[in-house]
Amino acid sequence: MRNIQRMARKARANSVRFRPHFKTHQSAQIGALLRDAGATNITVSSLEMARYFANYGWNDITVAFPVNILEIQKINTLAEQIQLNLLVESKEVVQFLGRNLTSSVDAWIKIDVGSKRTGIPYDRADKVTELAREIESIDKIHFAGLLTHAGHTYDAKSLKEIQQIHDHSVSVLNQLRGHLQETSFSSIQLSIGDTPSCSTVRDFSGVDEIRPGTFVFYDLAHWDIGACLEEDIGMAVACPVVAKHPERKELIIYGGAIHFSKDSLLRNGIQTYGYLAPLVSTGWGALREDCYLCSLSQEHGIVKVNDALIEEIKVGDIIAVLPVHCCLTANLHRKFVTTEGEQITY
Amino acid sequence: MRNIQRMARKARANSVRFRPHFKTHQSAQIGALLRDAGATNITVSSLEMARYFANYGWNDITVAFPVNILEIQKINTLAEQIQLNLLVESKEVVQFLGRNLTSSVDAWIKIDVGSKRTGIPYDRADKVTELAREIESIDKIHFAGLLTHAGHTYDAKSLKEIQQIHDHSVSVLNQLRGHLQETSFSSIQLSIGDTPSCSTVRDFSGVDEIRPGTFVFYDLAHWDIGACLEEDIGMAVACPVVAKHPERKELIIYGGAIHFSKDSLLRNGIQTYGYLAPLVSTGWGALREDCYLCSLSQEHGIVKVNDALIEEIKVGDIIAVLPVHCCLTANLHRKFVTTEGEQITY
Repeated sequence: MRNIQRMARKARANSVRFRPHFKTHQSAQIGALLRDAGATNITVSSLEMARYFANYGWNDITVAFPVNILEIQKINTLAEQIQLNLLVESKEVVQFLGRNLTSSVDAWIKIDVGSKRTGIPYDRADKVTELAREIESIDKIHFAGLLTHAGHTYDAKSLKEIQQIHDHSVSVLNQLRGHLQETSFSSIQLSIGDTPSCSTVRDFSGVDEIRPGTFVFYDLAHWDIGACLEEDIGMAVACPVVAKHPERKELIIYGGAIHFSKDSLLRNGIQTYGYLAPLVSTGWGALREDCYLCSLSQEHGIVKVNDALIEEIKVGDIIAVLPVHCCLTANLHRKFVTTEGEQITY
Repeated sequence: MRNIQRMARKARANSVRFRPHFKTHQSAQIGALLRDAGATNITVSSLEMARYFANYGWNDITVAFPVNILEIQKINTLAEQIQLNLLVESKEVVQFLGRNLTSSVDAWIKIDVGSKRTGIPYDRADKVTELAREIESIDKIHFAGLLTHAGHTYDAKSLKEIQQIHDHSVSVLNQLRGHLQETSFSSIQLSIGDTPSCSTVRDFSGVDEIRPGTFVFYDLAHWDIGACLEEDIGMAVACPVVAKHPERKELIIYGGAIHFSKDSLLRNGIQTYGYLAPLVSTGWGALREDCYLCSLSQEHGIVKVNDALIEEIKVGDIIAVLPVHCCLTANLHRKFVTTEGEQITY
C-alpha cells in the first residue's frame, strides 16, 4: 500500500499520467488498490491480460508489447470495448493494422533508448518520422506518441547511473519529439516505463506518462541496485522446510523453480535466487544476506543458512524467502496472502 | 509416443518396475499414453499432483519429494484412497508420521548418491539403518526400500560419465541394501530416477524400479549431454515473431520467461534458452545451432538468427523454439498441441 501510494503521489506531484503496469501482479484485487490510489489508465503486456482487466472495468489500456498481428481478432474485439493503445515499430505492422482494424486504436511508436530489446533505435529519427507518417495516413489509428522502456537501468551500478540513463532517455525522446513537431506532427506524448527510474528519479520533466509495474512489490533485483529499500519489498514466498542437512548447513524447502522462476542475483560474489527473512507476527523481519537460496530444481530449493539458524529451524517450519524477480514469482503463484491473512486470488 | 514406448520396453526387457515421473507433463491425457504403454505405478513431486492423478484412476503413487509434515491431512486423505508411497530421510518426520498417520503408507528412504540435493548421504549406513529401524517400529508405515535421484548426471560431460555415475549409484545402493539385510531387514527394493541414466544405460541389474520423467519430451539439456538424440526431442514452443532487427540479426518473439522459464545452456561458449527449428508440415525440422534464443524477459524473447533467416522470416510468422528444460516449460504452458493439431489440455 505504501509503495502504491508513494508512486501515485509522485506521479501527481509531477503532473504526469500514472499508467501502472499490471503484468507484475496480474490481479484484479491489487488493481483495485491502484484504482483507489488514483490510477485510471493501465499498462499490460498481452491482449489476454488486457481482456482480463477490461472485464474489471479498466477502459484505457496500453498493451506494452509489439503488436502480434496474429491476434488481430482479439485486437478488434477489445478496441470496440475500450480505449486500446498499441505499440508499433514497423511499417508492415502499421499497414496490416490499416487493412484489418475494424475499430479505432491509439498507437505509440516504441523507441529503443539503449536497452537493445526492441523498438526503433533512438538515433533513427528518419525511421520514426517515416513510421509516424504511415500511422497518420490510417484513419483508424491515432498517433499518440513515443514510448520506451529503459530496461538497462536494471544493470545500473548506482543511483547516479540510473539518473544518467533516465536523463539520456528523456533527452533523446524530446529530441525525437522536436524533430516530429518540425515535420508537422503535434500533441506527441512521451511515455517511460522502468521501475528503477520511476522509483529513484525526482523530476519527471519532459515526460507525459510513467508506466512502472514492479514498484507494487519490488524485489531483491531492485533492492540490489538501490531502486528500493529493504523495507519496501512487499513480497516473500512462504516455504515449508522439509529436510535439514546440518553438515552442509543447508535446508531443503518446498520452493523451487516452479515457485521462484530462475532469475538470480550475483551479490558479494554469491549467486542467489532469494534471501531468507525470519517470519514474525507482522510479516517478515530483516533479510539475512548470509542465509540464501543457492539452488533451485523443479520443486526443491536449497537454502544455505548460518550456524544459529541451522540449529533453530526445524523440519515443518515455514521460512520466508524474498524473491529476486517479483513479476515472475507472482506469475507462477497467481495468488497471495496478505500479512493480515487475507487471500488475494486474482 | 516413440519415447514412451522405448522406455516402457526397456523397463520390461530389464524386468524393472516402470514408475514414470509425471511432474514433467502433469497431464492426465499424456498419463493415459503411459498407461497404454504398460505403466501402472507413477511418480509425482507433490501431493497436489498425486491427488490430481488419483482422480484419474492411478492408485499407486510415489511422491518423490521429502514429506512436508504440514500436509499431513492431505497425506491421510490420499493414503485412504490409494497406495501412497512417501520419501523420508529423518527420524523427526518418521516419528511425526507415526503419531499422525490414519492410513497405511509405504516409505522409501531417500539416499543422496552424490547429487548433494537431499537424502541421507550414501556413506552413512549407520543413519540409514537407524531410520529403517524407526520406520519398522511404526505399524502404519511399511519400509519399501531405498530411493535415489542421481541428478548429477545432468552435469556429465559424456555418456561414459553418465554410466559411471549410474554404476556408482547402483553399487552404493546395493551395499546399503546388503548392510540392511545383514541387520535383519528383508525385501528392500532399490529405485533410481534420473532420465539421463535411464535413457543411456543398457543394463538395470541391481535395480528394482526406474522413475524417469523427462524422457517423454526430452529437451536441449538432455540432447547436450547425449542423453537423447535431436529427433527424440518432442516439445517445441511455437512463438509468433513480433519484430525484426536486421541490423542486429535479431527477431523479437512473443515467448519469454513466462513461457520458457529461465534454464539455460552453455554450448560452444554461447548461453542460450532455446534453439530455433523451422516449422514444417509434420512438426519442426532440424534445429539450427546458429539461431538461438539469447535473452528472455517476462514476455519478450530475443532470437539471434543467421543471414538467411533474417531475410526469410517475417513479422507474423511462427517459429518453433526447442526449450532447454521441458518440465519447467510444460509447467508454464499447461497445454499442448500435437503436430496433428490435437489439443492436450491436462
